[in-house]
Amino acid sequence: MQPVQPLPFPPLAARAAGLSESEVRALFSVASRPDVVSLAGGMPDVRILPAEHVAEIVARVVRRELGRALQYCGGAGLPETREAAAELMAMEGIHADPGNVLITAGGQQALDTVAKVFLDPGDRVVVEGPSYVGAISAFSAYEPRFLAVGMDDDGMIVEDLAELFAGGVRPKFVYTVPSFSNPAGVTMSYTRRLRLISLCREHGVPIVEDNPYGMLRFEGEPLPTLHSLDPENVVYIGSASKVFAPGFRVGWTTARPGLFERLLVAKEAEDLCSSAFGQLTVAAYVRSEHFAPNLAGYLALYRERRDAMLAALEAHFPEGATWTRPRGGFYVWAGLPDGLDAKALLPEAVERRVAYVPGTAFYPDGRGRDRMRLSFCYPTVGEIHEGVRRLGELLCEQTGEAASEAASA
Amino acid sequence: MQPVQPLPFPPLAARAAGLSESEVRALFSVASRPDVVSLAGGMPDVRILPAEHVAEIVARVVRRELGRALQYCGGAGLPETREAAAELMAMEGIHADPGNVLITAGGQQALDTVAKVFLDPGDRVVVEGPSYVGAISAFSAYEPRFLAVGMDDDGMIVEDLAELFAGGVRPKFVYTVPSFSNPAGVTMSYTRRLRLISLCREHGVPIVEDNPYGMLRFEGEPLPTLHSLDPENVVYIGSASKVFAPGFRVGWTTARPGLFERLLVAKEAEDLCSSAFGQLTVAAYVRSEHFAPNLAGYLALYRERRDAMLAALEAHFPEGATWTRPRGGFYVWAGLPDGLDAKALLPEAVERRVAYVPGTAFYPDGRGRDRMRLSFCYPTVGEIHEGVRRLGELLCEQTGEAASEAASA
Repeated sequence: MQPVQPLPFPPLAARAAGLSESEVRALFSVASRPDVVSLAGGMPDVRILPAEHVAEIVARVVRRELGRALQYCGGAGLPETREAAAELMAMEGIHADPGNVLITAGGQQALDTVAKVFLDPGDRVVVEGPSYVGAISAFSAYEPRFLAVGMDDDGMIVEDLAELFAGGVRPKFVYTVPSFSNPAGVTMSYTRRLRLISLCREHGVPIVEDNPYGMLRFEGEPLPTLHSLDPENVVYIGSASKVFAPGFRVGWTTARPGLFERLLVAKEAEDLCSSAFGQLTVAAYVRSEHFAPNLAGYLALYRERRDAMLAALEAHFPEGATWTRPRGGFYVWAGLPDGLDAKALLPEAVERRVAYVPGTAFYPDGRGRDRMRLSFCYPTVGEIHEGVRRLGELLCEQTGEAASEAASA
Repeated sequence: MQPVQPLPFPPLAARAAGLSESEVRALFSVASRPDVVSLAGGMPDVRILPAEHVAEIVARVVRRELGRALQYCGGAGLPETREAAAELMAMEGIHADPGNVLITAGGQQALDTVAKVFLDPGDRVVVEGPSYVGAISAFSAYEPRFLAVGMDDDGMIVEDLAELFAGGVRPKFVYTVPSFSNPAGVTMSYTRRLRLISLCREHGVPIVEDNPYGMLRFEGEPLPTLHSLDPENVVYIGSASKVFAPGFRVGWTTARPGLFERLLVAKEAEDLCSSAFGQLTVAAYVRSEHFAPNLAGYLALYRERRDAMLAALEAHFPEGATWTRPRGGFYVWAGLPDGLDAKALLPEAVERRVAYVPGTAFYPDGRGRDRMRLSFCYPTVGEIHEGVRRLGELLCEQTGEAASEAASA
């Protein structure tokens, strides 16, 4: 009975070759060292949520709904959670029937499930360049060919997508984070939203709109969500992670009838249903008197930190560096002076006790070496100043060296 | 801007064709009618968990760990939850390094993730006939070819698997619920466990052992888990859903190094991480003084209901019917007298206010029409007697009709 020969490693699926550790993940362990200022993570700062608010909501769920909270529920989610999600979407101009809302384990499970339903190996999928690293990971499991359409301060350069379509390219869907994008921090303009909507409808290509940050706008008027402009052709993904907390893993998606049912069946095969306890807690919180003031608290906090980061970048980053000026969300996207490589510099940056995510993580094709994502969501104002100072010092030295090398060459 | 032409339905992945509603799911709505005795569901009876125990544990998490409970965590899970899972596995003879334990959204997400890492379209996978319907659903998304190996009262007929191997069949893995299987309620004998282990090792075929019910043994001595017999070649899947509650969606898997890391990266792409709040609650509960007595309470409850179901079957089912005698778990698997079709009879059964799951749900190939799964986990003893009486009445009438038709033919 006792095995005598070594067991060879079993053959895996072709997709398993693509299941490599992401750059973001490898960084989490580094960035958690207490002396390192992490500008790398994308964690909402739940430390500002009053503990007594959460305790009250959780106690209410235990007191009133324990039987349901402990049990399995239907795969689409609990009625009050689907309704609460529809109410949050309504705040962004979306008229979603709760019966057409699928509760998922954060927005991430919705990304995985959408990809599972749409993508065969070799299918084309359009993402933004740069795009959310978690979406690239989720889609990669279904082995598509990625096309990354560039972005500027007005979001995705939709005319570049139009050229792809004109050249005959027909992706299975176009993925976008139109508001306060991760990682670029930019927002798609109204004109481009209209153009994207008409272009995709014309060519029969669905849009997947991922909008975790839409309610975290610091200034200016909200723009219409893509889903509100064309509900039939837009699969919308939302999340409670940034407006409340990620720890319950509650997100959602809504899609046209016919597609909704496919997403539901796929989601059920993935985990049967999302946590009933988490769903009831999120529904009760979103509908409580705590939601609005705490959301305002998040906004004030992130606005202050965004301002701190922009001021610190102005003060400490070298000439030739660029950065976006987000009007909401979590992230600034910085471009380095000529010749600098964010990936290569990361070990030295960590040595100097500051971390960021190199831009290459956000492209499916190796681009982004001269970019970095800087998060202002979690570090305090003091940490942001100190972290950007440390990073600026490193970049200025490197720029000086690059300049003197260029001069002596 | 306003769309003028109808939007055609977008092309989906090939796998989406298989994403149809399961028979079990369609039944949930029927079975939830209050006048119907449902012998269909697989819900643990969390109603017996004392509310004050759960309230105490949840309050402790909120008081001591709120910051972590509300936040994202590492994709593999929180340290204490991975340790608690290892402790539960140790109770079943498994020596798992907590660093090699992946926390998942119930055992279901582990099934999905294992299939994602192993299966390319057209690959063969061996399941038991009958097998857990949720495993068939999860695997189907990766488009394998199923082979169902028959079962008897000693579990999977391993010699039939040996014949397949001898004929050159090399599945990517063999999936089994060796203890108190869903739906058959049978347990693989020790001899067959040893044979399965040596056979699969000899042919380099990994085993996926799904063991949600192992700790719910009503009588007799525990048999060694497959993982404890060959840790290197067995991917083990466990769950807190049946020994505590499903509502937090906490399950786990452990696999050999190299494979573990692939599962981890795949899981991260699916949902980033499992609910930290749920993980902390499950870890605290499993390690509390409430776990052992409440598990004993579950056991006493399910044993009594198993006994009630076996007595009711003896009293009410027609001659020619067969059923298994489970020594643990949730399910009895019944065979109908010649010529009766459990799927065809279901609408009439529901009309008579009793529900079950027709056997066809548990085969990937349309077999099982003369079988039904009867659950004793959730209905009370009184409901079990009444439900089996209603069902027996229907079956006796049908058997009589079939007999007289046969006589007159």
